[in-house]
Amino acid sequence: MIELKNDRLLRALLRQPVDVTPVWIMRQAGRYLPEYRAVREQAGDFKTLCTTPELACEVTLQPLRRFPLDAAILFSDILTIPDAMGLELYFTEGEGPQFRKPVRTAADVDALPVPDPEVELRYVMDAVRLVRRELNGKVPLIGFAGSPWTLATYMVEGGGSKDFGLVKRMMFDQPALMHRLLDVLADAVTAYLNAQVAAGAQALMLFDTWGGVLTPRDYRAFSLQYMERIVRGLTREHEGRRVPVILFTKNGGQWLEVMAATGCDALGVDWTTDLGDARMRVGNSVALQGNMDPSVLYASAERIRHEVGTILESYGNGSGHVFNLGHGIHQHADPERVAVVVDAVHDLSRPYHQA
Amino acid sequence: MIELKNDRLLRALLRQPVDVTPVWIMRQAGRYLPEYRAVREQAGDFKTLCTTPELACEVTLQPLRRFPLDAAILFSDILTIPDAMGLELYFTEGEGPQFRKPVRTAADVDALPVPDPEVELRYVMDAVRLVRRELNGKVPLIGFAGSPWTLATYMVEGGGSKDFGLVKRMMFDQPALMHRLLDVLADAVTAYLNAQVAAGAQALMLFDTWGGVLTPRDYRAFSLQYMERIVRGLTREHEGRRVPVILFTKNGGQWLEVMAATGCDALGVDWTTDLGDARMRVGNSVALQGNMDPSVLYASAERIRHEVGTILESYGNGSGHVFNLGHGIHQHADPERVAVVVDAVHDLSRPYHQA
Repeated sequence: MIELKNDRLLRALLRQPVDVTPVWIMRQAGRYLPEYRAVREQAGDFKTLCTTPELACEVTLQPLRRFPLDAAILFSDILTIPDAMGLELYFTEGEGPQFRKPVRTAADVDALPVPDPEVELRYVMDAVRLVRRELNGKVPLIGFAGSPWTLATYMVEGGGSKDFGLVKRMMFDQPALMHRLLDVLADAVTAYLNAQVAAGAQALMLFDTWGGVLTPRDYRAFSLQYMERIVRGLTREHEGRRVPVILFTKNGGQWLEVMAATGCDALGVDWTTDLGDARMRVGNSVALQGNMDPSVLYASAERIRHEVGTILESYGNGSGHVFNLGHGIHQHADPERVAVVVDAVHDLSRPYHQA
Repeated sequence: MIELKNDRLLRALLRQPVDVTPVWIMRQAGRYLPEYRAVREQAGDFKTLCTTPELACEVTLQPLRRFPLDAAILFSDILTIPDAMGLELYFTEGEGPQFRKPVRTAADVDALPVPDPEVELRYVMDAVRLVRRELNGKVPLIGFAGSPWTLATYMVEGGGSKDFGLVKRMMFDQPALMHRLLDVLADAVTAYLNAQVAAGAQALMLFDTWGGVLTPRDYRAFSLQYMERIVRGLTREHEGRRVPVILFTKNGGQWLEVMAATGCDALGVDWTTDLGDARMRVGNSVALQGNMDPSVLYASAERIRHEVGTILESYGNGSGHVFNLGHGIHQHADPERVAVVVDAVHDLSRPYHQA
């Protein structure tokens, strides 16, 4: 087994001492990088990029060649699971992801299989194995999945949505059916994430992109409950180390306390919550990841450094903070500005980690 | 002066006893009504509809003919002010509002006039006067404006935006310039709302649609501060009655306490906050308006009644609640379902108002 040379991310997620605050960027392998766009063009389409392990591995590693990031995150898509369930995912330029076979009826829900990660999703596991080999212990690899509720929104709507009319109608009028759908998704996500750990993922993140469109009551019943079940079912020790789990609900700033109670190790926080307030609210129960507004990358280098400093100061002394944006990086961000962020985090955080 | 026959809205906003909880619906005069679409078609385009007092009056009154609503809200658009400042507002089908002359430079900002509401915005004041006359005391008329920050986002971006890259870049890199822009907007909004009161508006609402895309710190500095200045500058007594002011920041559920401290009479609350929790947080300082998810209107009548009941129960006993959706009604909502909401609010709220 190859020794992990930089374990700041894993230590910070477990609130163990670190020398500086670790940093990675959501969607760090993405369209803002010209070298990504080149591979994407070579692949022909987004889905081919996701399903070809060599290409997925290549774009996963690209940002690490540019920036001294403290983690790699597998290049993939949250909709691999519904695709493996037979919904036939496709991408149209400018339209976002869509499914040829959305889930609308009880018969549709009851026909959904739990995919075998090493069969229908083998291309993901092969990518994980390849990235781990190529990383050669440089930084840890984060695996991820979408939350059941978030996957359900795409599966029922047949793609992205503005008002979530179809999926919410199912939730309101056929709650038992919605629970059956979320139930099979929770099983599928658990199996998928555990397979990623077996293949080499060293930390896991659950993306609940659309939990924030629910009432507090519906969030607990239709999103949080299933994420908690997943967290409880995950492999938490592998290769002699703890595998930390990060939970992120976009626009979930009002619900950090209940999120922290799921048994996860860390919460992703978006920029509408002050990190210091978030830390007071969750106490020592979890680490926090975030939370710079991605649009700060449009500002000057000086202003970016200032913002990084403000966020580090807000979190304060000691471990338990992983610096990140509060949402995925925008496609028009300038890579030079990302370098400013990464350097500023490492530079400016040192004083907060002196005993 | 004609007596106001139904003053539930005004009483509830001032936390005075009422017989039942008053209800109105954000965007109640809108595309979900076939009679609105007919007038819209007759007008030819959205802007003509806004700028022709007789047509604006007609669509303002339409929902009141269908439903026993407790308030009328002037049919207009928040972008009338920037249009009156010379930015040349236009609408393209499916594109949303756009400006021919967006505000990008210091020279652009410094050239902005504060419009005279009875000159450049006379069509709005004429519509207010006309609606008041036609209402003939049936229910009170609500006037409104966009918050300075929200107006600034459209003015700098030149229309709607996904990442608010331009307006945030101005805020981050040229904060003094951004404050100058917000300053002139605060003056313009104050004059505009006071003119609406003089023309006959009996309650006012400030829509901060985009304050929720800011950090807590930037929200206070760039949105809330200016709304507070507006609230302090408003005519609060007219025609022998108090003119209540409602403040609404979409996705502002984390900031209710500071919003309540602006001196407003009521807060709009979206559905991501439990109304009972919100009431505990703001105490007796303000009334609350909201907060049903507009997508509940896609559910069955039975389910809608249940949701109305849950929201009324969450608020609990006594006055201080105005029932509404947590955001504007969706264009595909069925008018029959709106009738269910209005009736359910009046039916089910009576027990909460018994001494």
